[in-house]
Amino acid sequence: MHMWLSAAAILWQVEPLNEGAGFLWLALGISVLALLTVFYFAQYVLRSDTGTEQMRTISDAIREGAEAFLRRQYKTIGMLSVVLAVLIFIGYRVSPRNAPLATKTVIAFLIGAACSGFAGFTGMYVSIRANIRTASAARTSINRALQIALRGGAVTGLVVVAMSLLGVGLLFYFFGGLAAPREVPYQVVGFGFGASFVALFAQLGGGIYTKAADVGADLVGKVEAGIPEDDPRNPAVIADLVGDNVGDCAGRGADLFESTAAENVGAMILGAALYPHFGLKGILFPLVARAFGLIASTIGVLIVRTDEKEDPMQALNRGYYVTTVLAIAGFAVAVHYLLKDNWWFLGSGVVGILTAFLFVYITQYYTEYRFRPVASIAKASLTGPATNIIAGLSVGLETPALPVVVIGAALMLSYWFGLKAFAGTSVVEISDYAKGIYGTAIATMGMLSTAAYILAMDTFGPITDNAGGIIEMSNQPEEIRVKTDRLDAVGNTTKALTKGYAIGSAALAAFLLFSAYLDEVKEIVAGRLGASAGSFKFSFDSVNLANVPVFVGAMLGAMLVYLFSSLAIRAVGRAAQYIIEEVRRQFRENPGIMQGTAKPDYGSCVDIVTTAALKQMVLPGILAVGLPIAVGMIFRYFTGFHVAGGVPMIGEQPINLIGAESVAALLMVGTIAGILLATMMNNGGGAWDNAKKFIETGQYGGKRSDAHKAAVVGDTVGDPFKDTAGPSLHVLIKLLSTITLVMAPLFV
Amino acid sequence: MHMWLSAAAILWQVEPLNEGAGFLWLALGISVLALLTVFYFAQYVLRSDTGTEQMRTISDAIREGAEAFLRRQYKTIGMLSVVLAVLIFIGYRVSPRNAPLATKTVIAFLIGAACSGFAGFTGMYVSIRANIRTASAARTSINRALQIALRGGAVTGLVVVAMSLLGVGLLFYFFGGLAAPREVPYQVVGFGFGASFVALFAQLGGGIYTKAADVGADLVGKVEAGIPEDDPRNPAVIADLVGDNVGDCAGRGADLFESTAAENVGAMILGAALYPHFGLKGILFPLVARAFGLIASTIGVLIVRTDEKEDPMQALNRGYYVTTVLAIAGFAVAVHYLLKDNWWFLGSGVVGILTAFLFVYITQYYTEYRFRPVASIAKASLTGPATNIIAGLSVGLETPALPVVVIGAALMLSYWFGLKAFAGTSVVEISDYAKGIYGTAIATMGMLSTAAYILAMDTFGPITDNAGGIIEMSNQPEEIRVKTDRLDAVGNTTKALTKGYAIGSAALAAFLLFSAYLDEVKEIVAGRLGASAGSFKFSFDSVNLANVPVFVGAMLGAMLVYLFSSLAIRAVGRAAQYIIEEVRRQFRENPGIMQGTAKPDYGSCVDIVTTAALKQMVLPGILAVGLPIAVGMIFRYFTGFHVAGGVPMIGEQPINLIGAESVAALLMVGTIAGILLATMMNNGGGAWDNAKKFIETGQYGGKRSDAHKAAVVGDTVGDPFKDTAGPSLHVLIKLLSTITLVMAPLFV
Repeated sequence: MHMWLSAAAILWQVEPLNEGAGFLWLALGISVLALLTVFYFAQYVLRSDTGTEQMRTISDAIREGAEAFLRRQYKTIGMLSVVLAVLIFIGYRVSPRNAPLATKTVIAFLIGAACSGFAGFTGMYVSIRANIRTASAARTSINRALQIALRGGAVTGLVVVAMSLLGVGLLFYFFGGLAAPREVPYQVVGFGFGASFVALFAQLGGGIYTKAADVGADLVGKVEAGIPEDDPRNPAVIADLVGDNVGDCAGRGADLFESTAAENVGAMILGAALYPHFGLKGILFPLVARAFGLIASTIGVLIVRTDEKEDPMQALNRGYYVTTVLAIAGFAVAVHYLLKDNWWFLGSGVVGILTAFLFVYITQYYTEYRFRPVASIAKASLTGPATNIIAGLSVGLETPALPVVVIGAALMLSYWFGLKAFAGTSVVEISDYAKGIYGTAIATMGMLSTAAYILAMDTFGPITDNAGGIIEMSNQPEEIRVKTDRLDAVGNTTKALTKGYAIGSAALAAFLLFSAYLDEVKEIVAGRLGASAGSFKFSFDSVNLANVPVFVGAMLGAMLVYLFSSLAIRAVGRAAQYIIEEVRRQFRENPGIMQGTAKPDYGSCVDIVTTAALKQMVLPGILAVGLPIAVGMIFRYFTGFHVAGGVPMIGEQPINLIGAESVAALLMVGTIAGILLATMMNNGGGAWDNAKKFIETGQYGGKRSDAHKAAVVGDTVGDPFKDTAGPSLHVLIKLLSTITLVMAPLFV
Repeated sequence: MHMWLSAAAILWQVEPLNEGAGFLWLALGISVLALLTVFYFAQYVLRSDTGTEQMRTISDAIREGAEAFLRRQYKTIGMLSVVLAVLIFIGYRVSPRNAPLATKTVIAFLIGAACSGFAGFTGMYVSIRANIRTASAARTSINRALQIALRGGAVTGLVVVAMSLLGVGLLFYFFGGLAAPREVPYQVVGFGFGASFVALFAQLGGGIYTKAADVGADLVGKVEAGIPEDDPRNPAVIADLVGDNVGDCAGRGADLFESTAAENVGAMILGAALYPHFGLKGILFPLVARAFGLIASTIGVLIVRTDEKEDPMQALNRGYYVTTVLAIAGFAVAVHYLLKDNWWFLGSGVVGILTAFLFVYITQYYTEYRFRPVASIAKASLTGPATNIIAGLSVGLETPALPVVVIGAALMLSYWFGLKAFAGTSVVEISDYAKGIYGTAIATMGMLSTAAYILAMDTFGPITDNAGGIIEMSNQPEEIRVKTDRLDAVGNTTKALTKGYAIGSAALAAFLLFSAYLDEVKEIVAGRLGASAGSFKFSFDSVNLANVPVFVGAMLGAMLVYLFSSLAIRAVGRAAQYIIEEVRRQFRENPGIMQGTAKPDYGSCVDIVTTAALKQMVLPGILAVGLPIAVGMIFRYFTGFHVAGGVPMIGEQPINLIGAESVAALLMVGTIAGILLATMMNNGGGAWDNAKKFIETGQYGGKRSDAHKAAVVGDTVGDPFKDTAGPSLHVLIKLLSTITLVMAPLFV
């Protein structure tokens, strides 16, 4: 605590450094402090008791499986990153106009990838050690168990946000941002793309792993062999527990690392457009606001405590409220020092924070069984699996409606605040568009200011889920199982909420990234025109769907989202098939397993699903990266399909922007399609899951009734929706933005 | 035949009437001839033998049920149309600027609705009489049965296309089109909206009816009572057979009536933009090309014959090939007389015809069990319903990819042909955009030139399906059942192909309708500026997604598609619930039904599903009509959210186009989302259906195996996809276009 107070004191002192550079050091300093806090939280977790020998055996198996997967996964991602880095370098070097940027772009890309990898690895390192300690603590104190799980999760939350802040800040500094603040933000776009690239494969691979293991374990375990979930006789049970870590923890961590990295970069680019008014401070504002969010989240985590009686969700919510209030306060301070006390910007920030709140509530409405949607699915289970699925799809298709309205309202309101903020000023160099968009960027910063806390709550999920599994498999008394079940139920809720938050922030961030892309294309063209431009003023601010190639680009963007989801879902099916065959083989060759006299070979299942998931993630990954690049590079030659007169003249040079514009449409409409489909899949999957849980509380005949069997079918269908395709779409949306930012020079 | 030869002779003679008016009379004359052919086909069907007394009893029940539904449905639609007509009238009258157009728009709307209703009723009148005659003929000659079913279907095909042609042509004439050819096309947009409005409710109501009856009959019949499909003991069996008529026949007829009507109107508007080059002929070309397509389709139907051994699909395909070749020839003739021998336009037409072919083949790939997608679903059924559903959804999500690529290529190629067509000319008044778009319009005409034949094949489906049901229920010998099964299998294929064709033509037509909308907004603004415009040149050709309100409009369009589908699917579930309860009640209260000693009360099931379907269609219908109007009328006041300086000046008047532009984005992105979701649902549903049929051929254990049970779940889930939500989305897409055309004056 006193650490943060001294940080506040530093803040007060740097005010005189009014040129702004001091704020870069402030943001970097806070992120280093946050990393020290990570170390403190990690120590807190690791010092805790690790329970009985039997618990340790199980926990060790999970830990080894998760570490083995993560090592192999990051090795694969590392190789793919190096290949891509070489391709980017060549792509830039081919044209003499882009060549000067080649080295910086590649360095930024590799550092972005490395930072994401480091954050993911650190987070996982602690969570797979926090699970057993949570389980052990649950035997004596639920408060202690809650704190271990949350602080274990906070390691992921803080390291993710701090590393993305530190990475962008240092790149900005070393690329000479203090000297050339208007150019350097464009040179760090590679960082965002590196983060996206790692996130794509981390989420895809983790998502395929977790659901292949889950579906496979359920189908042979529950359905064929008739043994309960988490039964130690099931050879796939450890793979299933490993999956919770690599999917929900490492995957979502990479997802939010990508969000914060992309938002940092995009917002700095938009800040550069406001340079005439705010100078360096407008560019540094995103970093400072993010740093204050880190402080708010840390305090939020620290104050969480509960007792034996309270619903642990209440305790987590208290932490969330405190974080939110502090984040708003931090925002106000940042507006005071950096944005000339212009309180309209605080309004935009509050819009973003409110959006986060609304998304969380909408997600609850669609996924909790107190409300109509889940109840309708449970009721439809009475007439069998077909009506359960139909009801679930109907609910899923309904779910994007409210989020779209909220995002639309947030965009329009924050844009309007942005315009208002400049209403009294007389700066003529800044377009209305740049003003309004900066408003939406600030709303996104607001939404993401609580990211570290949200991510801590999210990682709380797999930790408590694993803790429950360890308690179950080590035959602890029923009363302890009840306690970990309470924590696990809270974890299920927080996981669902985080998905809503992640898609909401991706949607809000998307618009600022579009604008950053348009700005970048404009800069590229301005650079080409160079001296020959004379007094010619060029702007690129239209993505005109009424143009045929642009419309075709838009259709391809939406199509990409569908095809990518199809491949992701199919990958789960294929990988699950391998697990099913392996479990059947073990049951067949070693009948002792089912009698409980022989131990199943957990390791072989972990191995098989690791190999399968890594293999299956490649095709959708390549599609996601390849299609936007292909459209941009091919469509730039489609002039003849667009205007009769050949390549149009801009200034005095023939420059064809149809490729860049078509890619923009691909990006925007792909984003819309992705938001809708991801929301449908996340919430539909969550609703199916909880409809099953609702029946398990005794409704419609309870467990083992026909209605329950029907609901299990729905739950299984929802699994790849909500844990593979849906979350991978969050990543895809942001990847489209960062890839177009990095590749823009090749589209013009 | 000689009738058509004399038509050709007339064609040769009118050439001297080179001003073009003669071509209007030609098109109208051909459509009257087509209606006479309808009369001839109807006589051909009605003169045929009606089989045994027992067959007639069943057929009478179907006929009465279908007629009762259609009467009540059209009564409801009629009332809604009158209400909407009053609202349109008031909306136009409120502003003095729009008031002069109020009467014409409302008249066109009501005539469009009436023509669609007349076409639907006539088509149904014959198909519900053709079923028993097909069944009866199947007892002696499969060729005769095939011809009765196809000619019965051709009644729908010809009456739909002829009525839309006649309606648009006569309105054009009576509104003074020959005197003011550049203004009148804008005044007949109401016709297209009338057609859309009827189609929306016809397809929704019919789609809900058919699947509620189907799902309901299956769930209580097959699943609960364990009796086979089409078993006369099932009280819902007649409702199920009625459903095939009102959904597939009346629904799809209204769908394609809407396509042809909207395309006629839209293409005439684009032709008006080319007036400086082609004069009246460019405006009349769409009508003439459509008329020639009618001739081609009639000849195609007439030549179809088969023998006892041949696969009847071969015979239908021969007819399709002949129709296609003749349609191309007719196109060439029309280009010769009306478009100055400019063969680039023939190229555009051929692109459209090829697109139709490709869509048909892609649909086959995804829905026939010879190919990978359906086979993968069948295989996944081995591990239960959950994996069947996951595999089916994965296939469904994959299916839009190829169609999107085909549509994209068709748009770009036909646009390029349009530009090329004008390459040598020196007309400066015509923009590149108008030239290219006319090329895409001609591709759409090409695609729709075979519409009457395709629709005949489609209606063939429910006729043969019903014929099979009548044979089954009247206890005819097995060998006759085998014959009708062969026809029924062909009917299933043609129904699937037509859906592919319908969505393809909707997608291609969409772009010309967007452009017509942009043209109309431009005309409205030009009209407002009037004298004050001076030499000011105004154009409205940008739909800029980078504007925040426009982007929000785009998101709302995509959201509408999801929400509408959700409501449509939920409506099926609700209506099916009523049927299930009624059948259970009958089984409970009258045990004689299951023993075969008492006759079930078919009528009460028909009644109940009629009431339920009509009630459930209202909410999604109102959403579809209301949202675009609301966005246009609300967003026009959102200037402050868009630019800082208040309402922008155009010429010398303050005119805010942000509402009109946001609606354009809603329309375009809604269309993209609709194409993708409809393709996914149509093909996914078809694939599930055929995966079940594949297993029924003996694969994976055949009928009654566990795999079969899993496949039945998939088939049931696919039902509301492919027969309710998917086809309703086709209609929705076009409705968005026609509604914006009609309401455009209220958005500016």
